[in-house]
Amino acid sequence: MSLDARATKPHERLSEALSAEMEAVNALIRARMASEHAPRIPEVTAHLVEAGGKRIRPLLTLAAARICGYEGPYDVHLAATVEFIHTATLLHDDVVDESDQRRGRPTANLLWDNPSSVLVGDYLFARAFQLMVETGSLRVLGILSNAAATIAEGEVLQLTAARNLATTEETYFKVIRGKTAALFSAATEVGGVIAGREENVVQALFDYGDALGIAFQIVDDLLDYGGTDATGKDVGDDFRERKLTLPVIRAVAAADESERAFWDRTIARGRQEEGDLEEALRLLARHGTMESTRATALDWAARARAALKPVPAHPMREMLADLADFVVERIS
Amino acid sequence: MSLDARATKPHERLSEALSAEMEAVNALIRARMASEHAPRIPEVTAHLVEAGGKRIRPLLTLAAARICGYEGPYDVHLAATVEFIHTATLLHDDVVDESDQRRGRPTANLLWDNPSSVLVGDYLFARAFQLMVETGSLRVLGILSNAAATIAEGEVLQLTAARNLATTEETYFKVIRGKTAALFSAATEVGGVIAGREENVVQALFDYGDALGIAFQIVDDLLDYGGTDATGKDVGDDFRERKLTLPVIRAVAAADESERAFWDRTIARGRQEEGDLEEALRLLARHGTMESTRATALDWAARARAALKPVPAHPMREMLADLADFVVERIS
Repeated sequence: MSLDARATKPHERLSEALSAEMEAVNALIRARMASEHAPRIPEVTAHLVEAGGKRIRPLLTLAAARICGYEGPYDVHLAATVEFIHTATLLHDDVVDESDQRRGRPTANLLWDNPSSVLVGDYLFARAFQLMVETGSLRVLGILSNAAATIAEGEVLQLTAARNLATTEETYFKVIRGKTAALFSAATEVGGVIAGREENVVQALFDYGDALGIAFQIVDDLLDYGGTDATGKDVGDDFRERKLTLPVIRAVAAADESERAFWDRTIARGRQEEGDLEEALRLLARHGTMESTRATALDWAARARAALKPVPAHPMREMLADLADFVVERIS
Repeated sequence: MSLDARATKPHERLSEALSAEMEAVNALIRARMASEHAPRIPEVTAHLVEAGGKRIRPLLTLAAARICGYEGPYDVHLAATVEFIHTATLLHDDVVDESDQRRGRPTANLLWDNPSSVLVGDYLFARAFQLMVETGSLRVLGILSNAAATIAEGEVLQLTAARNLATTEETYFKVIRGKTAALFSAATEVGGVIAGREENVVQALFDYGDALGIAFQIVDDLLDYGGTDATGKDVGDDFRERKLTLPVIRAVAAADESERAFWDRTIARGRQEEGDLEEALRLLARHGTMESTRATALDWAARARAALKPVPAHPMREMLADLADFVVERIS
């Protein structure tokens, strides 16, 4: 997601308010991505970690812990953990998708090779588990190992659902919970757990992260068909890769016989021709699925904001609430 | 490794003595490789898990726990954990090596595809961590997450050391500790830890697993150049893949100028011609490196047997000692 449309965005305010902690997180990441024996590991990792991502996930963990009154030191470990898990999944995703670009730079599998991306990803997963073991909290370990399983399951589900016109909205939500929301919700939840907060607050933080992740991913999928984004992301990647995202699932559900034949040819059988993307966009418009998908994203953003109610009042709670609005701003 | 040369092999005796526990391990593996949402996961996993491996690693954990007087139930969880980690690394290795055969059957990446192997491997790693979290032992979690990091680091090191004639014996031992010995030693160590045994016993179990794994891998690497194996493993795979294993590292170290040019052409530059494998075998024979590698493997097997001294007397301790001899029997 590109988050640089306004002067002071919520994640920038979070980043500023948590700058000391984020410095500690970055130092810990650098220390733990080192490998005495295999210099390829820090090379590949640095390429991704220093690519200027927005570090949304570690910010979520640090903010949740701070709002809940936690004073360290393990919020830093957990923030580095979620960033390592995220980086590991990016490395593996690029192999799975055969991507050659990420955030406008060549991917690791292009600069090095697929074996390096697979194995360095495995190394980062293992490092993430080492970091969370250091917190000494079995509950945190349970949350993050469950999240890791949900992520992998969602990715496999996406793989098998691709090209399948029978994919339902229910499956779509399972996929995006896995690929995006599971790590968001684990990131916020562990912040409350490490602070020793009551169950309703921990649950609220989970619900916030879950809804935020879902809104985030729906927006991403919507912008793949255009939306109102001006940041230059290529339109139509998901169509070309024959992924079934919400606007298409809804258009397929509403399709008449000839439209159905179009989706069958382009998505199920992959026989795409010049002009097909434009025809797909016309079908989405005809059935209003861009608009209804947009409404669904706005609904999840509103749920994220509302979920924060039981969370203690704190300036950073407002930043998290604003982040929910910001995530859908690109389509508003 | 092929372990079917004798009537009653040590791992078969272990398997018999631990048949009830192994049944519980197999049931747990089947339960945990299930995925409600993504049927591709149990399909791929079953292909590997039910391929008739010898289950050496879970047997090591169960035996170590039993010898130390542990009566359950978490030995079963830990045995399933090490088997899941092993299976995950096999899935990723086959992608990395572009293998199409394992144990005489087509690999998962051939039957399905690389994305499935990468993502199902990730799922099994996550499931392994969930299983070990259930034991509630932070020390066990530390041991197994360290092992996972060592495994990945060893695999990356192997990747970067391949084709490099400057690879030393020191690097070789780091690679094989990672790719093989780290999971063996973790498997035996956690058996002692879960039983709450004294440090010297835990250390002895670690040392046994470490030495056993090293002996095991050296034998495997030796048999790749022939040895005395009659089980039909293709000779020369490592030569063709330009991997620097112990017999070659020692032959390169002893090479004269023209021999050096041969290794440079065939391994470093990969310009292999008909007759090169035979020439490589002649060079290994000329410098006696098959023989010296054999002696090194026997030495590590003896170390494994000797390491068991502080471990409590128990019929299964003798089976573990015999397993050390058995591992090197194919080259004796």
